[in-house]
Amino acid sequence: MSHTVRNKTRLIARVRRLKGQMEAIERALESEVPCADILNQVASVRGAVNGLTAELIEDHIREHVAKAEEGAREEGVAELVDVIRTYMR
Amino acid sequence: MSHTVRNKTRLIARVRRLKGQMEAIERALESEVPCADILNQVASVRGAVNGLTAELIEDHIREHVAKAEEGAREEGVAELVDVIRTYMR
Amino acid sequence: MSHTVRNKTRLIARVRRLKGQMEAIERALESEVPCADILNQVASVRGAVNGLTAELIEDHIREHVAKAEEGAREEGVAELVDVIRTYMR
Amino acid sequence: MSHTVRNKTRLIARVRRLKGQMEAIERALESEVPCADILNQVASVRGAVNGLTAELIEDHIREHVAKAEEGAREEGVAELVDVIRTYMR
Repeated sequence: MSHTVRNKTRLIARVRRLKGQMEAIERALESEVPCADILNQVASVRGAVNGLTAELIEDHIREHVAKAEEGAREEGVAELVDVIRTYMR
Repeated sequence: MSHTVRNKTRLIARVRRLKGQMEAIERALESEVPCADILNQVASVRGAVNGLTAELIEDHIREHVAKAEEGAREEGVAELVDVIRTYMR
Repeated sequence: MSHTVRNKTRLIARVRRLKGQMEAIERALESEVPCADILNQVASVRGAVNGLTAELIEDHIREHVAKAEEGAREEGVAELVDVIRTYMR
Repeated sequence: MSHTVRNKTRLIARVRRLKGQMEAIERALESEVPCADILNQVASVRGAVNGLTAELIEDHIREHVAKAEEGAREEGVAELVDVIRTYMR
């Protein structure tokens, strides 16, 4: 079981919104919308990706660290430390 | 005319790849792939969004600042400064 | 007791290096070093600040989450989630 | 002449404030302040480093791109593109 099960529906909704934002940017590029507007759309995608990341990390902490049994928790902590290193690089 | 015209094809290809990455994350969430793997996929999306941003800003600099006429350049510079502020916040 | 006790010496060494980097940037500004060089120095400070952040978060996870007793762990997890939200904003 | 000449005083003041923030973090580590508080101080340093970066890039754009003569502008643009790539990596 993954930590994402519980909040699966919410996470999938976030990912679909992001896909919709990518489609809007594709259309904006096709129709030659001014680049400042496109950069604003991309900045908003960046914010949404950060929000998705934070939610995935929080789920991981709750399911694989906070609620986990002793042995599983050690593994959850090791994974978490890897994730933090990747994102803080 | 937008600064994105010239590199339009390349930019659209980048955006489509990103959309494909979002679809892969959606499928991964549906099939309950371990969250550490999903976090890696999202980290790679974040890198791709940064790459897209850098390319859009570079196009803007080349088309609306470097090659622009005096008056248009002032406007291009003002837009660029706004973009830098947004992304460095 | 803080989670930073154990790695205190190492963390303080990192912070002192960062202070030294700030002093070097101050001198570079005083002596009108080309701005591209100064921007490189500041990029390197940014990397060092991210490294310091990652180390502080890892210490927090090890001391206040992994090793903590039940009640303290809940508090450690709540603090960790706040930190993640701040840094992913 | 560097692009930083004009705003030199303001930039140096920013760098000194950052150095002061590093000294405060060093004292906080020495006196075993709770790590959540130290992480907040480091988050605020990160914001200040981003602000310094944005100001340096803006100065560069104004002095070496907007106001520069044809040949110098080309060089200023090339440096700017390098900087954007470094910061968007």
